[in-house]
Amino acid sequence: MPINLKNFINSQATKSKMNDFQDLDHIEGVSISTISANLYDKSRDDLVMFYFREGANYASVYTQSKIISENIKWNLSIKNKKVKSLIINTRNANAFTGLDGYKGLKEIAEEASIQLSKKQTEDEDYPKKISASEILFGCTGTIGEKYPTEKIKKSIPELVKKIKYIQNKYIWMKAALGIMTTDLKPKLAMEECEIGNKKIKIYGIAKGSGMIFPNMATTLGYIFTDADLSNDILNKLLKQNIETTFNAISCDGDTSTNDMVSIFSTGKIKNVNIKNITDKKIKDFDAALHSVLLNLAKRIVADGEGASKFITINVTKSKTEDDAKKIAFSIANSPLVKTAIAGNDPNWGRIIMAIGKTDVDIQINKLSIKLGLQKIIEKGQLSKTYIEEDASVYMKEEKKIDITVELNLGKKNFTAYTMDLTKKYIEINADYRS
Amino acid sequence: MPINLKNFINSQATKSKMNDFQDLDHIEGVSISTISANLYDKSRDDLVMFYFREGANYASVYTQSKIISENIKWNLSIKNKKVKSLIINTRNANAFTGLDGYKGLKEIAEEASIQLSKKQTEDEDYPKKISASEILFGCTGTIGEKYPTEKIKKSIPELVKKIKYIQNKYIWMKAALGIMTTDLKPKLAMEECEIGNKKIKIYGIAKGSGMIFPNMATTLGYIFTDADLSNDILNKLLKQNIETTFNAISCDGDTSTNDMVSIFSTGKIKNVNIKNITDKKIKDFDAALHSVLLNLAKRIVADGEGASKFITINVTKSKTEDDAKKIAFSIANSPLVKTAIAGNDPNWGRIIMAIGKTDVDIQINKLSIKLGLQKIIEKGQLSKTYIEEDASVYMKEEKKIDITVELNLGKKNFTAYTMDLTKKYIEINADYRS
Repeated sequence: MPINLKNFINSQATKSKMNDFQDLDHIEGVSISTISANLYDKSRDDLVMFYFREGANYASVYTQSKIISENIKWNLSIKNKKVKSLIINTRNANAFTGLDGYKGLKEIAEEASIQLSKKQTEDEDYPKKISASEILFGCTGTIGEKYPTEKIKKSIPELVKKIKYIQNKYIWMKAALGIMTTDLKPKLAMEECEIGNKKIKIYGIAKGSGMIFPNMATTLGYIFTDADLSNDILNKLLKQNIETTFNAISCDGDTSTNDMVSIFSTGKIKNVNIKNITDKKIKDFDAALHSVLLNLAKRIVADGEGASKFITINVTKSKTEDDAKKIAFSIANSPLVKTAIAGNDPNWGRIIMAIGKTDVDIQINKLSIKLGLQKIIEKGQLSKTYIEEDASVYMKEEKKIDITVELNLGKKNFTAYTMDLTKKYIEINADYRS
Repeated sequence: MPINLKNFINSQATKSKMNDFQDLDHIEGVSISTISANLYDKSRDDLVMFYFREGANYASVYTQSKIISENIKWNLSIKNKKVKSLIINTRNANAFTGLDGYKGLKEIAEEASIQLSKKQTEDEDYPKKISASEILFGCTGTIGEKYPTEKIKKSIPELVKKIKYIQNKYIWMKAALGIMTTDLKPKLAMEECEIGNKKIKIYGIAKGSGMIFPNMATTLGYIFTDADLSNDILNKLLKQNIETTFNAISCDGDTSTNDMVSIFSTGKIKNVNIKNITDKKIKDFDAALHSVLLNLAKRIVADGEGASKFITINVTKSKTEDDAKKIAFSIANSPLVKTAIAGNDPNWGRIIMAIGKTDVDIQINKLSIKLGLQKIIEKGQLSKTYIEEDASVYMKEEKKIDITVELNLGKKNFTAYTMDLTKKYIEINADYRS
């Protein structure tokens, strides 16, 4: 394994040609299998299985939507301390499918438990029986369409058969490709870190906004590590890091019924026992996890439908983090701000508008706004150094646009990430079926 | 005056050619004057004065934005019980212009008070002196640009000189045209009603979303009546009716620094003294005012940038009106819903998504959704009578799309109005300056 694999993957993972990639390293205890269940068509894999031979501790965060998909209901019903498998299908969200959709998952989980148990029996090392309640599901695709239970169930034996304990070359990339819907690029990230002198790996894959059928922008993110961490610690670390990563991105302000981010730890690297996330020994892991999550979240934004610019919105010196977040998302979700950026228009009036329309108390005479490094507003006044032509040049030439709003009311910050709103977005979302 | 003038104006007002219109009737006590102050260029009037010879009672509602324009600050400082004039300029919003912008308004108000006093002195009937604090301002246009005080001030003598007590033909239309920014059509509405056997007129003009400079979608609405109503009654009637009219529309979910809706009553028709809005004698006026406001609000949506479809979202049988409103606006502001409608795609999954992402507690098994008259969801299940082809035909053939969400949790309703999100919207908002 080349020393610079991490950098290589993190920098190159946005390219979609598999041949550009080397195989990612093995994470002990994680096996991956992908297959075409003919959910789209035979030309691509659309069903992905992660198999944890000796089980994995896990934690998940789910959509905040009041309407949730059947697979999320299934996952929430799982009470096992360890899970054995995560199965992800594309093309059908299994949302608004009612009891049929839920029963479908049960049938598939039962078939998978039979096939995986059989495989474990054949494999002398791991002769344990696997139950349906040790399997989690991720679903993404059309909502309201009948869940393709039969197609998926029929593919399970072959999917299980393809599992190799020694990873295929490219298998992580194949998994990232296998969970895509209308994503243009597969999304992977990896970090290495240490817990008490033990080297730990954290790999992640994700998919982003894809809305070409009557469905929506489902975000899925799956993180895998060989560390030995309890469900409680995983849960706390995930919750703590999700706010500033997956929950800091906005493509169009819409929320899916299926959003799901999970972390799995196989415990294959026996690190020191971490009982509390304030433990200094977890600091390095915490930072590496944040990096993987942020990397994936940014890739989702960058691959947002029709995106031509990546926008970072920093709201600083706020009284509370919640205030900063409200303002950052008000800017990130404003169609007027996003179209201005698509048009390379340094339209700071729209930023002011987006700040003003939140319910956050601000003081105009303390407000400063920067576009990149250029000061636009200083203490509530148009900056004397502001030259609109320079701002236009910045917007035209940069693919990454930074907006900084300084409130000067406190010490809290929040950063949100979004993309511009282009004609291409409308094309993808309006014209696909016409 | 032809008997069908009201119907004629209300049905024809969306045409922009002045020649299509007859003059609106005179509202006793209201004089109108329009002029080009060369704010855009000499080709169009961009400065409008309403003059109330004997003063007018009035009430206003202003933007909810935390950042407000200088003219709104000015208006809020006016404590007079009656006002003598409303001056509206376009092209410059006088927002983020600081003390200079505020001083500019003071200078203009003083000049107007001198010129109007002079006119009143010349006119023997009304020899009262007018003060600067009897003048209100409406501003719309670019924010952050220096306010063109001199241009406007210089135009005041001519603007006042043009005032005729007997209205010019087309003067209401000229006023509606004079306050436009990027509106494609002038917006007028009129109603006639009775207060205790006295015939009362209510006329209104409005402007909507226009965002071609670094500015935003400013909504202005001005209502005029010859009724004799106190500021308190006007205020209560306006607040009561604004929620289901101007506050029920959304073009892109953005809010301006300059939004302003005002009502002026000249008291020229001495009706019975109304002390309370629960008085039955005001019922007819209340309904007529609602009709004028709703008519104008709908025209703003219909003329929304790039709009190809007018969308009505009815949320019914909600526990509270606030819940119904949250859901209606979540749908109305969803780019995914709005692009689907632009693409004639009966994408009900996106409606579900928009319902789910609010913080309103719903019960899926009670939820019903209709598109036009077609049932899509019945009690949480895809309707057995739903045929997607029929829904597609409805969307392709209708210019007005109705979405009905029935929550079956209570008795409250809310209706929101919006337009679809088209490539044209992006063009107008992104490409104008590039």
